Amino acid sequence: MRIQVINPNTTEAMTATIEASARAAAGPGTLIEAITPVMGPASIESHYDEALAVPGVLRAVADAPADAHVIACFGDPGLDAARELATGPVIGIAEAAMHAATLLGRGFSVVTTLSRTRGRARDLAARYCPPHACRGVHATDIPVLSLSPESLDRVVALARHALDHDGSDVIVLGCAGMADLCAAATAELGVPVIDGVAAAVTLAESLVRLGLRTSPRDEYAPPPAKLYTGLLTGFAR
Amino acid sequence: MRIQVINPNTTEAMTATIEASARAAAGPGTLIEAITPVMGPASIESHYDEALAVPGVLRAVADAPADAHVIACFGDPGLDAARELATGPVIGIAEAAMHAATLLGRGFSVVTTLSRTRGRARDLAARYCPPHACRGVHATDIPVLSLSPESLDRVVALARHALDHDGSDVIVLGCAGMADLCAAATAELGVPVIDGVAAAVTLAESLVRLGLRTSPRDEYAPPPAKLYTGLLTGFAR
Amino acid sequence: MRIQVINPNTTEAMTATIEASARAAAGPGTLIEAITPVMGPASIESHYDEALAVPGVLRAVADAPADAHVIACFGDPGLDAARELATGPVIGIAEAAMHAATLLGRGFSVVTTLSRTRGRARDLAARYCPPHACRGVHATDIPVLSLSPESLDRVVALARHALDHDGSDVIVLGCAGMADLCAAATAELGVPVIDGVAAAVTLAESLVRLGLRTSPRDEYAPPPAKLYTGLLTGFAR
Amino acid sequence: MRIQVINPNTTEAMTATIEASARAAAGPGTLIEAITPVMGPASIESHYDEALAVPGVLRAVADAPADAHVIACFGDPGLDAARELATGPVIGIAEAAMHAATLLGRGFSVVTTLSRTRGRARDLAARYCPPHACRGVHATDIPVLSLSPESLDRVVALARHALDHDGSDVIVLGCAGMADLCAAATAELGVPVIDGVAAAVTLAESLVRLGLRTSPRDEYAPPPAKLYTGLLTGFAR
Amino acid sequence: MRIQVINPNTTEAMTATIEASARAAAGPGTLIEAITPVMGPASIESHYDEALAVPGVLRAVADAPADAHVIACFGDPGLDAARELATGPVIGIAEAAMHAATLLGRGFSVVTTLSRTRGRARDLAARYCPPHACRGVHATDIPVLSLSPESLDRVVALARHALDHDGSDVIVLGCAGMADLCAAATAELGVPVIDGVAAAVTLAESLVRLGLRTSPRDEYAPPPAKLYTGLLTGFAR
Amino acid sequence: MRIQVINPNTTEAMTATIEASARAAAGPGTLIEAITPVMGPASIESHYDEALAVPGVLRAVADAPADAHVIACFGDPGLDAARELATGPVIGIAEAAMHAATLLGRGFSVVTTLSRTRGRARDLAARYCPPHACRGVHATDIPVLSLSPESLDRVVALARHALDHDGSDVIVLGCAGMADLCAAATAELGVPVIDGVAAAVTLAESLVRLGLRTSPRDEYAPPPAKLYTGLLTGFAR
Repeated sequence: MRIQVINPNTTEAMTATIEASARAAAGPGTLIEAITPVMGPASIESHYDEALAVPGVLRAVADAPADAHVIACFGDPGLDAARELATGPVIGIAEAAMHAATLLGRGFSVVTTLSRTRGRARDLAARYCPPHACRGVHATDIPVLSLSPESLDRVVALARHALDHDGSDVIVLGCAGMADLCAAATAELGVPVIDGVAAAVTLAESLVRLGLRTSPRDEYAPPPAKLYTGLLTGFAR
Repeated sequence: MRIQVINPNTTEAMTATIEASARAAAGPGTLIEAITPVMGPASIESHYDEALAVPGVLRAVADAPADAHVIACFGDPGLDAARELATGPVIGIAEAAMHAATLLGRGFSVVTTLSRTRGRARDLAARYCPPHACRGVHATDIPVLSLSPESLDRVVALARHALDHDGSDVIVLGCAGMADLCAAATAELGVPVIDGVAAAVTLAESLVRLGLRTSPRDEYAPPPAKLYTGLLTGFAR
Repeated sequence: MRIQVINPNTTEAMTATIEASARAAAGPGTLIEAITPVMGPASIESHYDEALAVPGVLRAVADAPADAHVIACFGDPGLDAARELATGPVIGIAEAAMHAATLLGRGFSVVTTLSRTRGRARDLAARYCPPHACRGVHATDIPVLSLSPESLDRVVALARHALDHDGSDVIVLGCAGMADLCAAATAELGVPVIDGVAAAVTLAESLVRLGLRTSPRDEYAPPPAKLYTGLLTGFAR
Repeated sequence: MRIQVINPNTTEAMTATIEASARAAAGPGTLIEAITPVMGPASIESHYDEALAVPGVLRAVADAPADAHVIACFGDPGLDAARELATGPVIGIAEAAMHAATLLGRGFSVVTTLSRTRGRARDLAARYCPPHACRGVHATDIPVLSLSPESLDRVVALARHALDHDGSDVIVLGCAGMADLCAAATAELGVPVIDGVAAAVTLAESLVRLGLRTSPRDEYAPPPAKLYTGLLTGFAR
Repeated sequence: MRIQVINPNTTEAMTATIEASARAAAGPGTLIEAITPVMGPASIESHYDEALAVPGVLRAVADAPADAHVIACFGDPGLDAARELATGPVIGIAEAAMHAATLLGRGFSVVTTLSRTRGRARDLAARYCPPHACRGVHATDIPVLSLSPESLDRVVALARHALDHDGSDVIVLGCAGMADLCAAATAELGVPVIDGVAAAVTLAESLVRLGLRTSPRDEYAPPPAKLYTGLLTGFAR
Repeated sequence: MRIQVINPNTTEAMTATIEASARAAAGPGTLIEAITPVMGPASIESHYDEALAVPGVLRAVADAPADAHVIACFGDPGLDAARELATGPVIGIAEAAMHAATLLGRGFSVVTTLSRTRGRARDLAARYCPPHACRGVHATDIPVLSLSPESLDRVVALARHALDHDGSDVIVLGCAGMADLCAAATAELGVPVIDGVAAAVTLAESLVRLGLRTSPRDEYAPPPAKLYTGLLTGFAR
């Protein structure tokens, strides 16, 4: 099966990190197609960036039909719209990580990048999880494009604080750019640490294997044909 | 004061309807600047359309500073991002209508266009209102661009059904294109009927008069500077 | 238009503070009629006081029809009953302040007078707001009638603590007697600080301008005629 | 022990009904003191009536110290204020009935008098119960003072409808004036039918026997001394 | 009346503590029958223990019909199943304690034994109480069978911390083995301290006196006859 | 990898149905070990049955370490306790089905066996899902052991009703015994129909592949050693 993994920002290095995590998680016989969009922001650190990452995500989904699609930014930009477009299931990495977290403990904490993105993470937790499953969202204050293997100590220290302060038992990494820290953080923390990229890939594989896709009934049916104008003329359907 | 009222779709006729409602509601001394965006869908009837209406909304906010901004589509597209950009308050019409509705009764019902848009309306009710304030969202199945004065009977009949079925006492019109039906529907129904365009304009005026604007603390601070590429290069800040 | 602003306690000096805030907020052409009730407690600092402030509020509403009514105590005493009586909309200052706060940020904190009143403030937040919008209620432990311009430092210090501790981005002043501290607190804090008196006046104006009033359907219809006895004989209808 | 059972309205016949139910429920050694207040409405069928029943309730609590107090109107008027005043526990009959109902099944339905009172019943369910415990509130449209043994058929028919429609398994009688219908309704319906007066008396006895009373910490401490003026001068403390 | 009080663990000394508390709370004419089950764990400190305590509880309920049953472990093991079996009402001690707590204040804190049991206590609070009534669950880290009069200081110190930290006004003792600490803790803390054993006994008496029992409609009807095999053959019905 | 799939009831034919569904869903390289417990009820149709199915489930988990465990009854009996025991992740089929359903649409409806089991299904939805995801639970009134290919029409008809009545877009089959109806129901309904057995197997595979297991921190650490007596002596650890 072929799974398209979309990095919603336009930074190739980050696509490479995401691709590595996705390939490591994928089963034999799964083809990972990692995509950098043809338009949009270099990184996503505000509602503004996130909103403007969506056209690139939707263009990627429309252009390259796949058995399933993964949106690999922790804000899950364009998830609802992508579900209308795609013929296979679409999974966001925040969605996948939070689902996995609730299967592994009572409560999870998110460790993320900038403080200002915490509101979005909480919104997504409210959308995906039962109340109280997400017990805290904590910011390292490391910008997305500054994440590196050197960020590990700060991530681990903040995760330790979160486990104690929030009384949680699972850690969710709140940025696709942290995917390559997951193994080392797990080793240090001794609790499940979840990288949403890997979680989303295996979840997408599961749904494809079961023959499941987004319900075509009502809300997520293909979007009606529509005239588009200006810069976005090409998005007409 | 100057209030920018943005029609998030690109249909001029709908901008005219919105402008008329906004002007009728505005106080003396308020200048209404109604805007049709320079890019985007002709109407908004899916998550896809809504996501792709956002760039046009944000372009309008960025290009024409105003004392306040109203986003005049019932999905409130781009509200969070616009709040980061704008120097004055930003109000969505679903937000304004739902706020007004909860001041006037125990529970409201929304009467809207297509069935598939109901999920978004419920999401917004969950975001803006206390639980159970929104008691139902009902679809006339009239496409946005087919709304006309002739739609009144269908809207009124569905509103009557909603009041009884949901046990609600206020009606919210679920599309900016219904603004010109508000007076007649009120006369027929005998309960408050709320047009979000008018409600948003007066709410925006209130906030401006009080000197209030979006908090610049953390989440809604101006978005960080960022490189944008492709079609969206012009959105770089 | 004529807006009746009721100070639910019987202290004239507090009515004066409220009146000043209301007049400053009102638009041209709005007549503010500030009222001290003819019966009731000198200040409201308990459920007992609040319950016994209600007859005076209702007497004021019944005696002086107006285009709208504002109940200017942060416990919003008698709001439901006043809505049944009044021919125009009725707004409580906690209600108005909390509505405004949710339009301006992700989460607000309330800074109030005595610790024992916090339960009521939380009840009102649960009634008016989506879950989690109100992130904390903090008590200065200054009695209502001891509030003065000298209270500013304590209010500002507590607000700073609240913003940090609660992770909120807007401050709501939890007592009508703090109305005259609003401008100075805003200047010091750099986030929106909301005085419910001003917020309620502009919100009431908005509803009147839109021709909206409490729904007469079912719950808020005028109260049925009823025999009253004893001290309250005069409240018969 | 001595339990004061307050009928918040001023109709002696209703006090008699309440007293009979209270005495039938009370254990040996419990003295029931049923009270008709010295001021207030003849029956409670609106928020207006309910608010104006509170002074009479509070006067009764203040004048006749008892081991516990029961407020015998399904709106539980004045409960919070009475808790501040009383030296023993205070129980509302809606509170007691809803507590009992959740011990006996998955979900209960309330059968009450006028349609307009349903909002208050739902508010109380939200205050006292876990979400979803109260599955419906249904109005017989019988005014409070028209309740009689002849009301049984209508109450039972509506309860049957409620059990099926709401999927509930317990019925709560939504008015103290229905107390004398409880036994017959139980016999006909074959599910628990709860009269709040009886439930409140036994619950009050339980708390007294355990030596428990309202916490004096913070919110429910005795109300601060306060000047009262006008008609309510006598309520000063 | 005869109330069966089941200690779900198999430690006789703990049954004695429970029995003493139950007898002290029971009214004249109530016969307390305290039971140690014939199978199961010596104490309950995990989900594993709790699940395996249930067969012993159900055997006790089935073997000794009573007017009411109390399950005297703070995890309320087997409550739903016991309700299907019993002909009278069944009350868990967490259920009874939490019900009582919400009648006596705004918010309660639970003081319990091991940290790992807090998840279960929170689950039960979510099931029995309105949101936010339970403000915290705190662990003394004293194993169940190590509780003794010497535990008082630790329980009281933790309760003091909980009252302040959680802003609560009532304390619930989170283990049947703390029943004999209740009077002393109450004396020291000056707020209501609730022992679930005593609370459950008086609540059970109340329901019996009112002729109320679990609704036989649908979910809690007697369990259908069923073949059982292996070790559990004797549980066939 | 080796996944243990436990049928919590003792009916071999049902284990066979479960095993077939599990094998069909499993990836290459996954060994499915389907287990019928050595003790317990022939089918699970009450809280009583469910409670008494748990010892057999726990015995199975303890006796046969595996990379992951699936509990294949829609009540997810013993899930928390099994998580304490197992060294790999443990998934319940209601949990897996509900997780999958929320990835594929806005709201799902459950179609189940007996009416009396609906309360448990709703409890699990509240535990696993965001509020409002589960829009209804509907009973075919077919006993568990009477399910057969002939049940398809009734299941499909009820699912159609549920989709319309609840406004849902996904169907969850509420019994492991319906696993073999899934493909045919999907074909007839045209929306995703989810068999929890298949969903749980692929979800378990995902977690194992990612190296994730239940957090050993606090609540789900291995249960403390404990003396067991009577029939359950063998459960001592």
